[in-house]
Amino acid sequence: MTNAQDASGEDSLIVRYFKPLATDPGALGLVDDAAILKAGGEDIVVTTDAVVEGVHYLVDDPPDTIARKALRVNLSDLAAKGATPAGFVLTLALRTREESWLQPFAEALGEDAKNFACPLLGGDTVSTPGPQMISITAFGRVPAGRMVGRTGARPGDRIMVTGTIGDAALGLDVLKGGAAAQALAADAPARDMLISRYRVPQPRNVLARAVRDHATAAMDVSDGLAGDLAKLCAASGVSASVDLPLVPLSTAASGLLSRNAICVETLLAGGDDYEVLCTVPEAGSDALIAAALASGVTVTVIGTILAGDEPPRFLDRQGQPLVLKRLSYSHF
Amino acid sequence: MTNAQDASGEDSLIVRYFKPLATDPGALGLVDDAAILKAGGEDIVVTTDAVVEGVHYLVDDPPDTIARKALRVNLSDLAAKGATPAGFVLTLALRTREESWLQPFAEALGEDAKNFACPLLGGDTVSTPGPQMISITAFGRVPAGRMVGRTGARPGDRIMVTGTIGDAALGLDVLKGGAAAQALAADAPARDMLISRYRVPQPRNVLARAVRDHATAAMDVSDGLAGDLAKLCAASGVSASVDLPLVPLSTAASGLLSRNAICVETLLAGGDDYEVLCTVPEAGSDALIAAALASGVTVTVIGTILAGDEPPRFLDRQGQPLVLKRLSYSHF
Repeated sequence: MTNAQDASGEDSLIVRYFKPLATDPGALGLVDDAAILKAGGEDIVVTTDAVVEGVHYLVDDPPDTIARKALRVNLSDLAAKGATPAGFVLTLALRTREESWLQPFAEALGEDAKNFACPLLGGDTVSTPGPQMISITAFGRVPAGRMVGRTGARPGDRIMVTGTIGDAALGLDVLKGGAAAQALAADAPARDMLISRYRVPQPRNVLARAVRDHATAAMDVSDGLAGDLAKLCAASGVSASVDLPLVPLSTAASGLLSRNAICVETLLAGGDDYEVLCTVPEAGSDALIAAALASGVTVTVIGTILAGDEPPRFLDRQGQPLVLKRLSYSHF
Repeated sequence: MTNAQDASGEDSLIVRYFKPLATDPGALGLVDDAAILKAGGEDIVVTTDAVVEGVHYLVDDPPDTIARKALRVNLSDLAAKGATPAGFVLTLALRTREESWLQPFAEALGEDAKNFACPLLGGDTVSTPGPQMISITAFGRVPAGRMVGRTGARPGDRIMVTGTIGDAALGLDVLKGGAAAQALAADAPARDMLISRYRVPQPRNVLARAVRDHATAAMDVSDGLAGDLAKLCAASGVSASVDLPLVPLSTAASGLLSRNAICVETLLAGGDDYEVLCTVPEAGSDALIAAALASGVTVTVIGTILAGDEPPRFLDRQGQPLVLKRLSYSHF
């Protein structure tokens, strides 16, 4: 995304739609080959996630929600790492230059960039004969050595998760006309809420500082709580016990579950939650909960880290371990 | 490119092919959601460039050359900005998981990462029903405030370019069976050299320090010398005069030109050179030339920056300005 001077295809597109987003001085107005990221003495946290049409979003998803999702899945990683957003670069592979698509896409991207204080620094726009693809690399800052990793969970830590789990998977199911769509045929508001959770994640960047201050390990839940917790435990060399009744569910999700319209795997192994999963020593858990409350995000203790290397156990109301047929949603 | 613990599609692919490339401690062995880039007091230079199958490389290009090109087009930007490579993140959109393609791709990527001291820090692997795409975001370091931009060229500066110009465009022409292919039907070594210049750029990272120390403005030549110089001049608010006979050509290119087998536009407005174009005050030009000599890279003075805002002029042997029908190659 370089050179705003001439009027060739890529350049005029960039001037019209993306230059207004490049508000950071380091973006150099998108007229250079590169951007400058000032780091001071801090560490730069780098994360990259791509979304592909037909794989990570649906062909007829609205362009504004596609833009928000593409950026927010990266913002969610920064939140879980305890990092403050610093900016992002965008690679946009377009089939056509349809302005009716690009205009709302760029506008929504700009709104999110502003609201999350994560300005566009640069990028590349390429044409493709295939599906659209949006690849974003986002940057955050943490004090040196303070990024929250996956390896620090210790036995006795409380396992916490923000927001509610499983709504996005149900939203995808609604869009695909699955079991949730049938069961909610008469409940348009619930369907809309679930679809919105699938299309537009709510990354928990307001909690980044508290995660950094109190969590021993953290990651965002993107491929399903069960599988992601298993990954965190494996990275930390620990096990875990989760009380299923504590897992936070929306009213819509718990209603569907209690009517047996869906099974619990759909919630625990579905993808696209983009909530923060973290482990916190008992001493820090009240502070994290207070910080969450103050910032309007719910955070829920769902279990405890245990010694050992068995996969995490999910215990039902009777204390019996649930046997999950699958742990994760694979976009691959 | 996270989580090396389980054996699902993306994860096993990453463990097998990409974990060996993640040699930098900041990559965290690719088991986290993010990487750490230590900056100290330096600025981080960020550049991103994507290559799409059938657009930036040919469907039957060998996977090892595709890997090298994908990384090197980014390394070339870092070289022109005077930055020392620090690492890169990779987004790989794959149609299939064909191991016979991935193995040489990852091996060549690893070799280049090692040779250019630019380790893999992280990434994302996604599936696509469409053409393959490789998007790389690369990072470099410069002392604070020292990135070489496009805006600093001043009247009187000498215009310099590394290597030779136009070979890659001829290589593409050979691969497509164009005029160059016909004219070189009996000269396999020349054809191979030109194809190699198209497929595997030679980024001039060994010159980055000298560019930073001596150039007032710089960029890499990726879309054609004529158009790229016009962009640099516009960004700096200057004009330029280039002596065409001084533009460095390979023996193959100058032979084709003298036989009228190709026209000069093919060389000046062709893409994919990935040479450094820079402007240097007279006082610094000897030092830059000496540094280039010492590092085995040729650098050639091709003209002078002038005051004014006219587009750069290209003067032939008789001092007459050439009228170029096009300035750039557009990949878009």
